[in-house]
Amino acid sequence: MEKGLNIPVLDIPRIVIIGGGFAGLKLAKGIDSRLYQTVLIDKNNYHTFQPLMYQVASSGLEPDSIAYPLRKVFKDKKRFHFRMADVQNIDEASKTLQTSIGPMQYDVLVIATGADSNFFGMENVKKYSMPMKNLVESLDLRSRILTNFEKALNTTDLAEQEALMSFVIVGGGPTGVELAGALAELKKQILPKDYPDLDIRRMQIHIVEAADRLLANMSKDASEKTEKFLKKMEVNIWLGTQVKDYDGKEVITSKHVFNSKTLVWAAGVQGVPPAGLNATLVRGNRILTDEFNAVVEKEGIYAIGDVAQIKSDAAPNGHPMLASVAGQQGSMLAKNLNALARKKPMQPFIYKDKGTMATIGRNLAVVDLPFLSFSGMFAWLTWMFVHLMLLVDYRSRMVVFVNWAWSYLNYDKGTRLIVRSERKK
Amino acid sequence: MEKGLNIPVLDIPRIVIIGGGFAGLKLAKGIDSRLYQTVLIDKNNYHTFQPLMYQVASSGLEPDSIAYPLRKVFKDKKRFHFRMADVQNIDEASKTLQTSIGPMQYDVLVIATGADSNFFGMENVKKYSMPMKNLVESLDLRSRILTNFEKALNTTDLAEQEALMSFVIVGGGPTGVELAGALAELKKQILPKDYPDLDIRRMQIHIVEAADRLLANMSKDASEKTEKFLKKMEVNIWLGTQVKDYDGKEVITSKHVFNSKTLVWAAGVQGVPPAGLNATLVRGNRILTDEFNAVVEKEGIYAIGDVAQIKSDAAPNGHPMLASVAGQQGSMLAKNLNALARKKPMQPFIYKDKGTMATIGRNLAVVDLPFLSFSGMFAWLTWMFVHLMLLVDYRSRMVVFVNWAWSYLNYDKGTRLIVRSERKK
Repeated sequence: MEKGLNIPVLDIPRIVIIGGGFAGLKLAKGIDSRLYQTVLIDKNNYHTFQPLMYQVASSGLEPDSIAYPLRKVFKDKKRFHFRMADVQNIDEASKTLQTSIGPMQYDVLVIATGADSNFFGMENVKKYSMPMKNLVESLDLRSRILTNFEKALNTTDLAEQEALMSFVIVGGGPTGVELAGALAELKKQILPKDYPDLDIRRMQIHIVEAADRLLANMSKDASEKTEKFLKKMEVNIWLGTQVKDYDGKEVITSKHVFNSKTLVWAAGVQGVPPAGLNATLVRGNRILTDEFNAVVEKEGIYAIGDVAQIKSDAAPNGHPMLASVAGQQGSMLAKNLNALARKKPMQPFIYKDKGTMATIGRNLAVVDLPFLSFSGMFAWLTWMFVHLMLLVDYRSRMVVFVNWAWSYLNYDKGTRLIVRSERKK
Repeated sequence: MEKGLNIPVLDIPRIVIIGGGFAGLKLAKGIDSRLYQTVLIDKNNYHTFQPLMYQVASSGLEPDSIAYPLRKVFKDKKRFHFRMADVQNIDEASKTLQTSIGPMQYDVLVIATGADSNFFGMENVKKYSMPMKNLVESLDLRSRILTNFEKALNTTDLAEQEALMSFVIVGGGPTGVELAGALAELKKQILPKDYPDLDIRRMQIHIVEAADRLLANMSKDASEKTEKFLKKMEVNIWLGTQVKDYDGKEVITSKHVFNSKTLVWAAGVQGVPPAGLNATLVRGNRILTDEFNAVVEKEGIYAIGDVAQIKSDAAPNGHPMLASVAGQQGSMLAKNLNALARKKPMQPFIYKDKGTMATIGRNLAVVDLPFLSFSGMFAWLTWMFVHLMLLVDYRSRMVVFVNWAWSYLNYDKGTRLIVRSERKK
């Protein structure tokens, strides 16, 4: 079967994994290739290290630092096949996926399709805002930020200039906070030198957050420190504020109207289950699973990572959509599927929270460990060390290290290149 | 005047430079800011180090390694203004440029707009081939190469697979030779591991060159060595062969028809004089100038670099379109314009040939110095050292060095990322 896809048919069962994010990657790595043939499908040919994506958007890093070719990860794995494709439909009766490259059979299907921006039905916001959920969107945002300043130079209309130099970031989670901090550093260290003909003090950075504190998933202490750090860096924080509408010029919120050409959407995410899966979806468009990550009322279909929610009394809203949860679910499901093939019992998934952290700027970060919270210079060093070590290979680590060291010593960011044309609206 | 562009009007003359390549960059650096106000216009916000562009196309480097933000170069220069814009027309009577950001006055105009691909009137070749004259085209080519292999996996039609895995490079100059070598390394070291389901031995790399040797601008010895190296790396060399037509599938040449989905155009370049300049153009669309780079029969207009040709009996076809010529012309014109303002005599441009070189692959390069030619391992080390030193700053040098060292030690190339969607035809 499937001669068209050049994937051999073996005597052992085939696991098809949709999505090469943290969950899919860990799962594929853990599958015992003596027990299963593994097929990994992703619409990109690379895995993205999402926690550093904001540095691509803010001219700190290039894509190769945070994106890793999936084929390279698995070059030594046996009975493994990667295919770049979109999944268009699932036929559960015949256990067949319809994909952009043709039909594909599965014995076990694992959905690890992750999450995408959730605009909560606000079509205008979706149309005019800049999301930052993948590499291409991050490059688009970088080009937009730099292009805005080039444009601001060519007008004497002060309101127009201010709209170009005003950035409204919606969402006070790690992405929003880290991007706001990076923009504040651009404002302080780089833009005044790059644009001596503009009064960069007029640049405004706003964070708009519906909840009553930033980093709501972290400790109260971390939230307070983060607010303090950001205020020191002249970021305007709007708590308890909801975005209502945006026409590309005016951001209408529950408290204030911002005159801004750039709305960055880092507020909501929702799962993106594949088309044709007729499963029970819960809050945030996530697929409901049991504690073994098996999709409820399905046979041989599992879901892991951001797109999945385990039915549990302990966490009624599911686990947070974090890389660490996704990675742990991927590893656990690999163990369980290997156990299944060996006719051994499966184990329920239990999340081990190893801590969360966010960086705000030079020497400024917050870290929550299970029994300890700290902030400042040491937290910042911890954040850098942990993120360097989480990168997939030595080359990326060295390139990121060179860029960070350069940036730290020279108050500079190296990749201020406009390589994407203006995003179509 | 020009309040709309936010460029102040001073008592000293204004030099407007169109183009931030090697010529424009050296010129702007050399202008004495006590004597002139300098305005640099480019359609990109960065300077491109073109000699390493083929490494972006062949997954070796990311754009930030070879592109440098122009504002960063000139952050300490006084009375200097950069503007990202296209020039649409030149009104010589009123000394005014019409640009995409509005009108701009000049006292002295310098045209340093460089060269672009020349398809010699073959519209089909222009439509279906991939050029590699700027950063975006190089990224497009990288994505195309990788996407071809992804597509080859999904077909069992052998002719289709061969067309996807066949690469025809037109032009045996440094760009064509270096790209062919880089593709041969991908074929040998990387693609068999990345695509175990494909028989990569069936990948074909062809260089098609109209002249009777490769690297026709270099010594006979360099040409012979280059042919030997490339043949050893299984690159097919077609000398004395002209491309006649291409429909996206079949490359029709004077000797052979190639079944190939990818034609890389590295054959011809021509000057791109700005619109509205009514000047004498010579062979290759270059603007004719006197030995001071003043455009003939014009007042206060100069042309330098690839777009210019000095009227000379010694070099009837002009100087070669090389970064070194462009840089030297830029530096010399800066000296001459500074001399002019000080009412001192100008000096004619004389090209100092410091040598040329090309790299073919691991440990393989050819170097022609004025009194010495050599090749092999030492030439390769020379090539790497010279190119590292020519990069604009330490950060780029370190990032390139890390990538090269990694690649050398691990037989790997780090940036195999498909980040551009398929180029529109």
